[in-house]
Amino acid sequence: MIHNFTIDHQLNHRTIRKFKDQPLTDEQLQTLLEVARQTSSSEFLQQMTIIRVTDPQKRAAIRAVSTQPYVGAEGELLMFITDLHRNELIRHHQGNLDDRRIEKTEMFLQAYEDTVLAVQNVLNAAESMGLGGVILGSIQNEPAKIIKTLNLPKHTFPTLGLQLGVPDQKPQLKPRLPLDKIVFENEYQDIDPASLKDYDQIVNTYYDLRDANRRIDTFTDQVNGPKLNGTPQVRDQIAQALHDQKLCLDL
Amino acid sequence: MIHNFTIDHQLNHRTIRKFKDQPLTDEQLQTLLEVARQTSSSEFLQQMTIIRVTDPQKRAAIRAVSTQPYVGAEGELLMFITDLHRNELIRHHQGNLDDRRIEKTEMFLQAYEDTVLAVQNVLNAAESMGLGGVILGSIQNEPAKIIKTLNLPKHTFPTLGLQLGVPDQKPQLKPRLPLDKIVFENEYQDIDPASLKDYDQIVNTYYDLRDANRRIDTFTDQVNGPKLNGTPQVRDQIAQALHDQKLCLDL
Repeated sequence: MIHNFTIDHQLNHRTIRKFKDQPLTDEQLQTLLEVARQTSSSEFLQQMTIIRVTDPQKRAAIRAVSTQPYVGAEGELLMFITDLHRNELIRHHQGNLDDRRIEKTEMFLQAYEDTVLAVQNVLNAAESMGLGGVILGSIQNEPAKIIKTLNLPKHTFPTLGLQLGVPDQKPQLKPRLPLDKIVFENEYQDIDPASLKDYDQIVNTYYDLRDANRRIDTFTDQVNGPKLNGTPQVRDQIAQALHDQKLCLDL
Repeated sequence: MIHNFTIDHQLNHRTIRKFKDQPLTDEQLQTLLEVARQTSSSEFLQQMTIIRVTDPQKRAAIRAVSTQPYVGAEGELLMFITDLHRNELIRHHQGNLDDRRIEKTEMFLQAYEDTVLAVQNVLNAAESMGLGGVILGSIQNEPAKIIKTLNLPKHTFPTLGLQLGVPDQKPQLKPRLPLDKIVFENEYQDIDPASLKDYDQIVNTYYDLRDANRRIDTFTDQVNGPKLNGTPQVRDQIAQALHDQKLCLDL
């Protein structure tokens, strides 16, 4: 294994959900935003916007959507928005009123990719400063409420939140699927689910030792659980929310 | 601005498309795959798979889809796959045959996010080793061909390629939109397109000075150009390809 400052942080990545009541410095925040700005952008279209949420009421509204008590409590809260609207404004300014491409799935995914890439880039930068963070997929539980809270126009979509701060916990490293279950050469291969027994035992031990959480579980038990059942869930709103935002209209 | 080894690499990120004819070492490759493995995963579902493409015929097939001559030429070619199929296998193994959630947009986006996060994490690790890379959105030009080339099952989707290697070019840093056009506080704000004049001039100068490329262009000219017109494009296949893969069926 190669080791350097960057890679050592990456291999030791833990999600941090509990932060000290200590804000980021202006210099830290500015640096993180510059890193976001320098992230790769597909076809140079730069279809990503960040909304920094400092208003306690808005933070509470986002917390209510995410249903996680730590969301918007301590730490910096950055909302990463897939943004096809900015380029639409530029086109309209030139009298170019044909927006149909913006409303196609392929453009949405392209912009979504830009946005998610920026999230990971900023998280890596934050961890390199000794900060910790949690990526908030839970902001998509009810996209319409986030859209209203952040006053997002059509052709934008709330993608991921990123909460960052000075860590106030030291969680253990979460054991991931072995590489031979997730990396293949030249073509896809079905794994044999029975071969996950050893990994399940490792995950079980991880949960057994973890502080402040009594759940004893395995990976395959989680996958087999209700998480992936077809029963209606609040997040089913995402499909409609995309169409309401005039995105993916060809799907 | 805060400077450290990680951030300095991030702020100096250039896309590298030309690589020396020099393979990655096994140690480099293994480290990069370990970094991918340790990337954040939504709800611990680990819905990402990497296919390393070494077969010259498959590399040529991917190059043909991307229409970029450098794709699959020199360097390591990793294909990042959104993978909801692996967990389906685990569920079927337990007699759990209800796959409807896997076929919903919300699950697809969750898995897609995991996959894109891993791409950026690996790119950062590669750049920290002195390697360079290019993220290949162009593999989505014709998803059906990539799906066939990599033998991808239903409930998976080719998301991004990442080509990595020893840089054989030194491109200039591409000037990005100023921070005040992409970062806002508490709510979204429309930019004034007329305010992009200075930035357009910077982009124009960048293209003017760039070696080996005669295009003189501005950012707003690119946005106003045919890229975003509604005329049919080959990439319009993405919507159908998602449905063919039994994904986003609620959209």
